[in-house]
Amino acid sequence: MDARKGHLVIIGGGEDTRGDCTILRHFVHLAGGRAARLAVLTAASSEGEQAGATYRQTFLRLGAEQVTVLPLSTRADANDPSACASLEDATGAFFTGGDQLRITATLGGTALLRALYRLHERGAVLAGTSAGAAAMSATMIVGGRGDDTVRRDVLSMSPGLGFLAGAVIDQHFAQRGRINRLLAAISQNPEILGIGIDEDTAVVIAGASASVLGAGTVTVLDGSQLAHTNASESRAGDPLALMDVVVHVLPEQYRFDLLTRRPLPPA
Amino acid sequence: MDARKGHLVIIGGGEDTRGDCTILRHFVHLAGGRAARLAVLTAASSEGEQAGATYRQTFLRLGAEQVTVLPLSTRADANDPSACASLEDATGAFFTGGDQLRITATLGGTALLRALYRLHERGAVLAGTSAGAAAMSATMIVGGRGDDTVRRDVLSMSPGLGFLAGAVIDQHFAQRGRINRLLAAISQNPEILGIGIDEDTAVVIAGASASVLGAGTVTVLDGSQLAHTNASESRAGDPLALMDVVVHVLPEQYRFDLLTRRPLPPA
Repeated sequence: MDARKGHLVIIGGGEDTRGDCTILRHFVHLAGGRAARLAVLTAASSEGEQAGATYRQTFLRLGAEQVTVLPLSTRADANDPSACASLEDATGAFFTGGDQLRITATLGGTALLRALYRLHERGAVLAGTSAGAAAMSATMIVGGRGDDTVRRDVLSMSPGLGFLAGAVIDQHFAQRGRINRLLAAISQNPEILGIGIDEDTAVVIAGASASVLGAGTVTVLDGSQLAHTNASESRAGDPLALMDVVVHVLPEQYRFDLLTRRPLPPA
Repeated sequence: MDARKGHLVIIGGGEDTRGDCTILRHFVHLAGGRAARLAVLTAASSEGEQAGATYRQTFLRLGAEQVTVLPLSTRADANDPSACASLEDATGAFFTGGDQLRITATLGGTALLRALYRLHERGAVLAGTSAGAAAMSATMIVGGRGDDTVRRDVLSMSPGLGFLAGAVIDQHFAQRGRINRLLAAISQNPEILGIGIDEDTAVVIAGASASVLGAGTVTVLDGSQLAHTNASESRAGDPLALMDVVVHVLPEQYRFDLLTRRPLPPA
């Protein structure tokens, strides 16, 4: 939540890449518009080459000056000095979708991830969609059914890239009915804010301020008022109890203060 | 919420009818156990005969003294004095699943519905599963996608049978990801409590006291603290905003006070 850091653009997957491209256009704008020099990281994708080419084309069409695709399919790629060098003058980096464990298992502890931290520290914009969104938080959701009762151990979590502290992200949120797994996540540590992002929808974070962009909504689950949960005494598979979770559903132009945990209607 | 009235047993669909039958067994117990005289109303079902036969067999196996199936496929059936007479000494009535509009369109304004009101007033237990659960409230949900952003007009509502005041029921709740349509319902009138019931799970209501029974959870959405919604100024299809909805997720043995709107852990 350091205001000197660059923006985060965290996208719930399925964002428009052909029409107005509201979200991707905003990412390019934040990264400098016609002066934007972008890196596309396809580590999450099993078909990274195609994803990289599509995003490269889209970002160039939206006016970016330069777009470099970094495939990074192995840890050796992510420790290669030339890959790190290509990030040196980037103003934005974009994580494609796929599998968030591929991102963290490939980038975790590498020179390239350190270069991304430095990039973010000095103000570059970091964006990610779907798996690339999930990986943004310090702890990320890697699996869990969206069509079952809220249960203990319905979800599996893993350490994420840590660009966003104090929150867990879930994506394709309304489309895949994922509120139950996000409720399960916050029952385990109600200090963590649950942020569920619909498809073609993004949360844009600048310092402690989050704002919503796109066609759907961002659902915020705040467990800080939680009066009771059975998360610790229940057994694996047991239905979970949670009392007094506060929920906000926020469409475009609505904002949320990550420090005070208060939502705000459009200015 | 009159304590002299009989219990309501409102079931989220998919209840066990072959194993322990926890929920149906409790219904028979509340209706008098070995002295239970039950009516099964299959108005919701397109294949009412089979549904009626299955529940009759199950309730007899669970010890009920007498089980009468009332098919009620037309309004004439529901105004037939002999159908009403068969309810005279019932201690419980059970609505099967199917289509809640078939229940209200067939029974609304009929002699049989008046007989059911009298039955409930004098202490008989009313139960319903799936569509039979939805129809219990004064306003009922009849449709709405479970896999989309919370939107204005994603759901359609209709007058229900009115056995439960001040709440809207939704069923197959976790299994069909229906929280968004229940959020849309309470955005339209936050005075109304949203009660989402998972499959093989029931909420048992006695006066103002609700308790949870079964394998899943009951999700209560309380909009009484709602700080803001765009429900009235937004247009059809627009994403809805809701701030400060309080959510409780309650498994078996948890209770909820419908008057104070407070959840309670197991005694």
